[in-house]
This record gives sequence, structure tokens and C-alpha cells, in this order.
Amino acid sequence: MSRDQAFLDAAHALGHSFDGEIKRGGNYLPVVRVGDTVHVSGQVPRVGDTVVVTGRAGLDVTLERAQLAARICAMRALALLQRELGSLDKLRALPKVNVYVQSADGFTQQSEVADAASELLVAVLGADGAHARTSVGVFQLPKNAAVELDLVAVAHAG
Amino acid sequence: MSRDQAFLDAAHALGHSFDGEIKRGGNYLPVVRVGDTVHVSGQVPRVGDTVVVTGRAGLDVTLERAQLAARICAMRALALLQRELGSLDKLRALPKVNVYVQSADGFTQQSEVADAASELLVAVLGADGAHARTSVGVFQLPKNAAVELDLVAVAHAG
Amino acid sequence: MSRDQAFLDAAHALGHSFDGEIKRGGNYLPVVRVGDTVHVSGQVPRVGDTVVVTGRAGLDVTLERAQLAARICAMRALALLQRELGSLDKLRALPKVNVYVQSADGFTQQSEVADAASELLVAVLGADGAHARTSVGVFQLPKNAAVELDLVAVAHAG
Repeated sequence: MSRDQAFLDAAHALGHSFDGEIKRGGNYLPVVRVGDTVHVSGQVPRVGDTVVVTGRAGLDVTLERAQLAARICAMRALALLQRELGSLDKLRALPKVNVYVQSADGFTQQSEVADAASELLVAVLGADGAHARTSVGVFQLPKNAAVELDLVAVAHAG
Repeated sequence: MSRDQAFLDAAHALGHSFDGEIKRGGNYLPVVRVGDTVHVSGQVPRVGDTVVVTGRAGLDVTLERAQLAARICAMRALALLQRELGSLDKLRALPKVNVYVQSADGFTQQSEVADAASELLVAVLGADGAHARTSVGVFQLPKNAAVELDLVAVAHAG
Repeated sequence: MSRDQAFLDAAHALGHSFDGEIKRGGNYLPVVRVGDTVHVSGQVPRVGDTVVVTGRAGLDVTLERAQLAARICAMRALALLQRELGSLDKLRALPKVNVYVQSADGFTQQSEVADAASELLVAVLGADGAHARTSVGVFQLPKNAAVELDLVAVAHAG
């Protein structure tokens, strides 16, 4: 199965197409490619115009909802990579993923939240999606998002 | 207009030269270049010996002051790039900018704070300054700074 | 003295071997190398199965304990680099280190915590270990760790 089909299947499982909704902001870009290196801007769990998981993990956001948020962030990042590269099959490696979890005092399961994103990335990308990762618990995120995720990818040359 | 002139104009608008004040710490470097990739260390809104915007965005720091802080951080990063490269005209790309905002509980305008930095970077660097970005709200920053910013740049070869 | 010997000496000084204990998680990798660039995942101050410094800097963790945590994180990152490269002598550069400090309200010495990691990295790696750095104070870290550290290294070609 191609990675683009795996992406479609993952989108179907999450109940959203992740198609065509990602617009650029006024003064920065969602994706920048320099040579073969592709940086994806921080993604929040937005579907259409709505951030669908807001609040603090460990307070008003359960671990399960935070994991859903992480999956949506990962799907948005994949959608951006797919658009930039033409196909996810042109991705060579995913060296680094960063996951920021808006956390309540005493919530220490940032790794478990990030695991949901990691699992999805590897499910779609296969072995080339194996990545280094950092997950931390921040105090606030833009638009009260529960999770934000960014990543660095490397494209096949040419 | 050269980018170095644009930098001078931006410095004039902010009322400070950003000239010669940036010293290296004892055990890390403000800028490291490896090949054509240049990493700039996290910059706080320091002017001379003083961090000029301290406190929490949304508590004792207004959005406007936090945006000023973000601009000063961006100018410091540009000053370091200029010194490293000889001229900002030698910058090829600005793949990634990270903005950390020391935030009060409930402050969710980290993107709006970061916009001020992004606007300045694009104003000085032009289209080559278009960048991917991540902005998050952290709990504390060094020296009680309201904002910290780091970035990755790419120089023209040679 | 080789860097690998310097690593052993630093491990001895910290009272732990950092040998063989670092296992990969289920869905991400501790280290990913793409070309000559090596990303090390976020390291917490774990020794064996135990995170040895937990809590908040400035509340239940003193500056000195947070600095110990930063050193242990740095040693774990070095151990991973050593295993990936075969020897630390194959490291060409250390462009970027990020240090996240789980901070109490009002704790602003994140740079001083990170200094301990920077000093250790330069002590082991010599001039090639000089790095750009960002340190921030986050609200929560995985497993209540006091410090988390990640880094980007560059290997000698071949």
C-alpha cells in the first residue's frame, strides 16, 4: 500500500479528510524546504476552522483526548508534507518530531500523548517514519490547543 | 535596498543600534555554523545589559509589549547572523523560527506575539526570510524575559 | 586523551557507567542519523530505571540538583552519540542543544541549569562541542523529570 493510501485510511479513521483546509498565515509558512530538508511549522489540532481539542491535559483534557489531539496534529503535518513533496512516498526520513502538551500541574504523561502521534507517523510512513522525538509539557498553547507538534523531514533527492 | 540597510532602519525604528553588544557566554556560542547551516541560540529581549521586557504575557506584559519583545529578539538574531555571515545579503533561507512566550494562565495569543517577529524578519530579509515557525507559551524564561526566540538559517554556499 | 576516555571519566565522576541502559521506546528512536546529521531524542535524568532528579527547579529542586540533572541528561545524549557513531571522536560538530527545565513560578535560572550541561559537553568533546543553545522553563516534563535535553550533532563524513 502506498503511503498516500495509508494517509487516506488514517484520515478516514479520524473522520476528516485533511484536504485543502490548510492555509498559510500572513507572515510565516506552514512548510519550508531548503535542499532536501523540510521544516513543518507547529500544528495544532485544527479541523477546518476549529481547534477540536482545547484545554489542559490532566485537567479538562483526558489522556485519550490529548492523544486524539496529537494524532490530528500529526495528520496535519503529513498533509503539509504530502502537498510539499507531491506524495508521501517521496519522504526519505523523519529525523525529528517535537510534541508540546498544554499540561496541568502534575500531569507527567507527555510521552504517552506523543506516542499517539509517533504511532500514526510510523503507521503511515513505515520504517522511514522512525524518528527522534522530544515531548514537553508547556503552560499555554496558541488558541488554547491541547497539543502542538512540529517536525523536520528529509525528502528523496531530486 | 540591501538587507543590511533594512536592518539598520529596523534598528533605528526600535531606538537601538544592536551593535557590538552581543557577547558570548562562557560555555556556549551565540551562533554555530556547520556547512551552510547556521543555528542561532535563544535570544531574549536584551538591550545592552538590560532585559527590557520582563514578566508574563497576559499578566504584567500586554500583547503590544510582548510583540516589542519579540521584535527585539528577532533583531538580536539578525545582528548575530549579520556578524556571522558578513552581510545579511548572504542569507539564503530561514527555514525555522521558534518563539517561546512566558505566558500567564489563559493567555493564548502566542501566535500573535510571534507574528511581530515574523513580520520584522520578512521586512528585513525579503522573500528569503519566509520561514516555518513554532510558537508556544512556556512557564518561565531565563532572567524573567517575556519572550525568547531562536532560529535556523542557511547561508549561500561559499 | 580521547573523547571516549573523557566520557568514561565524566561517567565515573557522576558515579554511573551509562552503559547499556538506554533502550528504545516502542514507536520512536533515541537517535536518528540522516546523512551526517544526528538528532538525539529528549533525554531525562534517568539512571537505570529511575529518573533520579524529579520535581520543580526553584521549588523542591535546588539549582545544584537541577544542574546535576542537566549533566546526567547530557551524559545520556553523549552515550547515545557514542553508540551511534562508534566513538565520540567521530563527532564533527554540535550545532544545537535545547534544555527544558521544569520550573517553579519565579524561577529564572534556566541558563544556569543549562550551563552545567554545556560545560560537560565541552569538557568531553573539546572545541568541537561548542554549541548554540536554547534554554526555557516548562511547566511539566515526562515522568516529573526536573530537566530534559535534546541536541543535534554532525558526524565526520564517511
